[in-house]
Amino acid sequence: MCRNMGVKSKQTVDDQSISHHTGIDLGHLPELIGYSLRRAQIAVFRDFRRLFYKFRIRPIQYGVLTVIGVNPGLKQSQVCAALGIKRANFVPLLNDLEHRKLAERRSAKDQRANALYLTKQGNHLMRELRRINKMHEHKVAAGLSRRERLQLIRLLNHVRKSMDRGTSS
Amino acid sequence: MCRNMGVKSKQTVDDQSISHHTGIDLGHLPELIGYSLRRAQIAVFRDFRRLFYKFRIRPIQYGVLTVIGVNPGLKQSQVCAALGIKRANFVPLLNDLEHRKLAERRSAKDQRANALYLTKQGNHLMRELRRINKMHEHKVAAGLSRRERLQLIRLLNHVRKSMDRGTSS
Repeated sequence: MCRNMGVKSKQTVDDQSISHHTGIDLGHLPELIGYSLRRAQIAVFRDFRRLFYKFRIRPIQYGVLTVIGVNPGLKQSQVCAALGIKRANFVPLLNDLEHRKLAERRSAKDQRANALYLTKQGNHLMRELRRINKMHEHKVAAGLSRRERLQLIRLLNHVRKSMDRGTSS
Repeated sequence: MCRNMGVKSKQTVDDQSISHHTGIDLGHLPELIGYSLRRAQIAVFRDFRRLFYKFRIRPIQYGVLTVIGVNPGLKQSQVCAALGIKRANFVPLLNDLEHRKLAERRSAKDQRANALYLTKQGNHLMRELRRINKMHEHKVAAGLSRRERLQLIRLLNHVRKSMDRGTSS
């Protein structure tokens, strides 16, 4: 059943077992998707944080501002669902963005209570952040061909979808 | 310079812009490696945590126990370097593993001060965890062919390496 996993596939990735960087044997870790995912994600986010530090924007805030910007008037619950954010984590995040006058809640009479919008300042900042994020993405994809980049995103989406299916079943 | 990134590649991933799950437009987020990485990593780690919850083992602890198990007598600094853990984060993590009698520091006379070892109990637990992790990895890779699985790991390593190069230069 697990023919493709773990020790049985060791011969194909054996050269990765010893870390090139430290010379230390990582055992079966480099054969695990979760391990490679996490190491890559940490490296990518480290660069993101470095670039966005002066704007006090974390990756999750970038995502929230993007989704609100593209969908003016969205409800909090919709933003949470779209980005997979827990409601309890979203409230302080949104409070901070409101406090900094980047996003705002507007309670409208047409029942779209607490509809979310970017402020003028938020829209302005997003244009700047988007520009910086292009440089960041360029760096992330620097070692990949265009085809590999799209392939990577496709495979990551596959993984996420099969995990999501596993959870709901 | 950024020919492969951002808006210019939009036509190739346009079908992903609208979330199938929520119907909400995610803008350019699905075109970003960082976004796909993070969403996949969260989904994978959620499953890991669920499976390992009863053992009180987080992914990072699994990594540390694996590396110590494969390299008995390793120093703390070597484990940190191998797994990219900050020393400040490693100390409480190791204290916890020692407290639970899974790993131990031994200060030897041969200058390998604070060499790390798994205890008998730690070795025993790791055999059990390794078995469960195979099931987990099987689930993670369920939507991928063997070739795609290896391809994904290869691409993730490419991304990490080019980020690491970017940081050190």
